[in-house]
Amino acid sequence: MLPQWLLDRLATETAGFATVGSRMKLVIDLSRLNVGQGTGGPFGAAVFDAGNGTLIAAGVNRVVPLNNSTAHAEMLAIAAAQQKLGCFDLGAKGMPDCELVTSCEPCAMCFGAIPWSGIRRVVCGATAADAQRIGFDEGPRHPDWVAELEKRGIHVQTGVCRDAAARVLNDYQSAQGVIYNGRVA
Amino acid sequence: MLPQWLLDRLATETAGFATVGSRMKLVIDLSRLNVGQGTGGPFGAAVFDAGNGTLIAAGVNRVVPLNNSTAHAEMLAIAAAQQKLGCFDLGAKGMPDCELVTSCEPCAMCFGAIPWSGIRRVVCGATAADAQRIGFDEGPRHPDWVAELEKRGIHVQTGVCRDAAARVLNDYQSAQGVIYNGRVA
Repeated sequence: MLPQWLLDRLATETAGFATVGSRMKLVIDLSRLNVGQGTGGPFGAAVFDAGNGTLIAAGVNRVVPLNNSTAHAEMLAIAAAQQKLGCFDLGAKGMPDCELVTSCEPCAMCFGAIPWSGIRRVVCGATAADAQRIGFDEGPRHPDWVAELEKRGIHVQTGVCRDAAARVLNDYQSAQGVIYNGRVA
Repeated sequence: MLPQWLLDRLATETAGFATVGSRMKLVIDLSRLNVGQGTGGPFGAAVFDAGNGTLIAAGVNRVVPLNNSTAHAEMLAIAAAQQKLGCFDLGAKGMPDCELVTSCEPCAMCFGAIPWSGIRRVVCGATAADAQRIGFDEGPRHPDWVAELEKRGIHVQTGVCRDAAARVLNDYQSAQGVIYNGRVA
């Protein structure tokens, strides 16, 4: 599911990501690289061990090249982290304190995937408004999505490095990248 | 992602499924077989061409065996249909009238995945209450999920063969199958 350049890049990222900002910087880089490499849409995400800043796994949007509308960055990052740690529940006993860092707020699907994943913390860059401004759509996300996650013990932080994250979206639009939604027909 | 027995079974299903009831019967069969074969949880789903009743693709819940919390039956059925038809949008021009038939109402994630998928119709067997009664959780699904889909032009039908679908869930509980949720730790 993941492009080769991403796997190569991850192999070089052996140092810890001590701050939330440094983790966000990585996923914004991935979102931009994904467009530049022609391997998908302008979205990146990764799962970190929030305890020591270790990068566990990452994902980028692969919807168009893989012909798979479920292949959002967050979904692939979650699935890759679960593969790596050998458990379908990243919140199970013995797991690290897993944090999902995403270059853009989760859409309705990715939001719904988070409680099942065992992720304990979610950090978002660009906002739903930033994505919508260029024509992407978050879908029918729960209107109280942050509160719904928080009440399940999942901490949410939004707007981290928002300008840098939104810039990737704006540049994608300027370059006339494919904007897909539920109805592109 | 799909177990071999399912691929073998699909290869034999060459006749059309003329009625919604016959389509639901198939996915209920798949949900029961998935447990019997030890290849995942008690959920099945399939995508049909609602125009002529042709089976396009199917999925079953593979969360535990694949260590992947995103591997719900509906997600795998949607992804498989998109692979088969070579398009990330099943609602694009030239596509068949794609109907997702699922043995149980979609959870928050699968609900959120539907608008991106291009699915035009959703048919559900067991209800959220049936799943919750045995300990599964639909997650933070939009409170007006049916209306949210309908307003995007996606027709929703619930409670089709509900008793037969719920029986698979009840039997799974009786056999002490693994019930996983956001927090199993």
